[in-house]
Amino acid sequence: MTITATARNSGNIKSVIDRLQSLLESDLEGVETLLRQRAKSPVDIIPDLSGYIVSAGGKRLRPMLTLAAAQAVGGANPSTHALAAAVEFIHTATLLHDDVVDESDLRRGKPAAKSVWGNSASILVGDFLFARAFTLMVETGSLEILDILSNASSVIAEGEVRQLAAQGKLDLPTEDYLAIIEAKTAALFEAAARAGALSGGSEDHAPALATYGKNLGLAFQIVDDVLDYGGATSIIGKAVGDDFREGKVTLPVIIARRRGQTEDHAFWERALNVETQTDNDLARAIHLIRTTGAAEATIAEAEAYAGLAKSALKTLPESQWRDVLSDLADFCVKRAY
Amino acid sequence: MTITATARNSGNIKSVIDRLQSLLESDLEGVETLLRQRAKSPVDIIPDLSGYIVSAGGKRLRPMLTLAAAQAVGGANPSTHALAAAVEFIHTATLLHDDVVDESDLRRGKPAAKSVWGNSASILVGDFLFARAFTLMVETGSLEILDILSNASSVIAEGEVRQLAAQGKLDLPTEDYLAIIEAKTAALFEAAARAGALSGGSEDHAPALATYGKNLGLAFQIVDDVLDYGGATSIIGKAVGDDFREGKVTLPVIIARRRGQTEDHAFWERALNVETQTDNDLARAIHLIRTTGAAEATIAEAEAYAGLAKSALKTLPESQWRDVLSDLADFCVKRAY
Repeated sequence: MTITATARNSGNIKSVIDRLQSLLESDLEGVETLLRQRAKSPVDIIPDLSGYIVSAGGKRLRPMLTLAAAQAVGGANPSTHALAAAVEFIHTATLLHDDVVDESDLRRGKPAAKSVWGNSASILVGDFLFARAFTLMVETGSLEILDILSNASSVIAEGEVRQLAAQGKLDLPTEDYLAIIEAKTAALFEAAARAGALSGGSEDHAPALATYGKNLGLAFQIVDDVLDYGGATSIIGKAVGDDFREGKVTLPVIIARRRGQTEDHAFWERALNVETQTDNDLARAIHLIRTTGAAEATIAEAEAYAGLAKSALKTLPESQWRDVLSDLADFCVKRAY
Repeated sequence: MTITATARNSGNIKSVIDRLQSLLESDLEGVETLLRQRAKSPVDIIPDLSGYIVSAGGKRLRPMLTLAAAQAVGGANPSTHALAAAVEFIHTATLLHDDVVDESDLRRGKPAAKSVWGNSASILVGDFLFARAFTLMVETGSLEILDILSNASSVIAEGEVRQLAAQGKLDLPTEDYLAIIEAKTAALFEAAARAGALSGGSEDHAPALATYGKNLGLAFQIVDDVLDYGGATSIIGKAVGDDFREGKVTLPVIIARRRGQTEDHAFWERALNVETQTDNDLARAIHLIRTTGAAEATIAEAEAYAGLAKSALKTLPESQWRDVLSDLADFCVKRAY
């Protein structure tokens, strides 16, 4: 497995997302209608700003996970659409707040909302979407679903705070990195899949789909973190080096530093400190991540979680939904090439 | 009614809050326990930061409103305590985000949380508390209560965005000012009282208590806004001039400008622009607000809403709870002296 496998797999990558979108076409239409309707407000900035981030560039991965989980165990219904829209609103609110916290100027290759409307509007519109997510969940009529998503939301915030505290902490243990991404990313994937299964009518399959979602989320985030050092950015449109410039200690950095020479330690200490890093540091960081084999080791870690995700699907009834969810786990890793 | 009435009424003011705290003693203990327990997290910054703002200086006005509303129509129970704690968490989350949006360095006379832990931690811990508020509400077992509070939360965010858009807008109509404070402040008072009544077991009295809460919230915010220009700051510990320095157009300013001379118009335009205001402007603003009678006119507006709040209580059964809620409406206005 090498970085040059990029071109070979890009056909498959496209086809999995296309297949999911095509299978879920009518469900996704229902979700899109809700996303538009529920972002409405007499205060113009709210639909303008939320429309900018909600309608631009997102793959709708999390709502598709909710819908496909429901379909895999019984079927999606209008209440599943409300749930899927709520999951996307929670995700969007998180993105808006993340951009302020991370001081990122770009999001999915476009100026971040906070670069257009300012930090204050991004914070407040995030709050608005988060509140609207809960109103949507009330419409599902399920206290269990509300419990799952409100718990996931506090875990996400915990993960973000923990990530903030770990900024520039070069000796971050791998286990702490994994705990951070499990909270900030995998918790919402897990909740989206578990709640989707419940919305589809199955208590029995909810734990398996939750395990699938959690491991899919871990694989997805690990790959996102390696993409930040030179993966297939054209697909997700994420500017390379964002994490680096924010001093985020991610798995490729942890592995490259662990495997590096003593003089590399000094480099990482200086370069991942936002006060002391220079313009040429990113190129050297990418070089070290490749030459130490940290990029491949990181992708291998992601592959392991994708494997766990696929294993969790084995207890589900055979269906095209189970197949596409399995392929989605592969897709999450293939993005890295 | 003059500003010099301060000393005369301070005894009554203390006694109303004391009476409420004493009547609700065991309920408030239950709420305080929840506030401590549910702010816990393995991520130290979260309990540290939230403990700083949750435990310091707040009067617990909103949870007391929820508890007293429940008591007035049937009684408070453990589920009412969860609801009251949720209301306080929503309020606290709003304060944390407000301080970042307003760039306020002080809150209740102490350094704002964001001055101690930074903007990012304040945003994320606000998100955490907001999520925990919803988990607490799930424990009430009532979808109706979740609906009321999630709707109120999106209305609050709308109000904050609207306030942001109105910053420095000197020709803000009084009606727009009232719409902003109804959303950003009165909506939570209204929801707290309505949900409290439902939690106390009464569908019938919920609308009256909602009307009470809304008008109480309006009176409370209007008085807060006049206190920012020289009211009894020693009681709420709020630094005088915060709104002024942030370019917020509030009722005392709207009235003083409307009644002022043409040269005063130019003063307000310059002084409420955060780019052009100078250190001596606050003193002149306070002078104009007093000499035009804007302070008294603002307080009279608050008194009118306090009167509407008290009228709404008439349909409730006679009780010490009804009496203390009525006195609370008077207290909200008396704070101005």
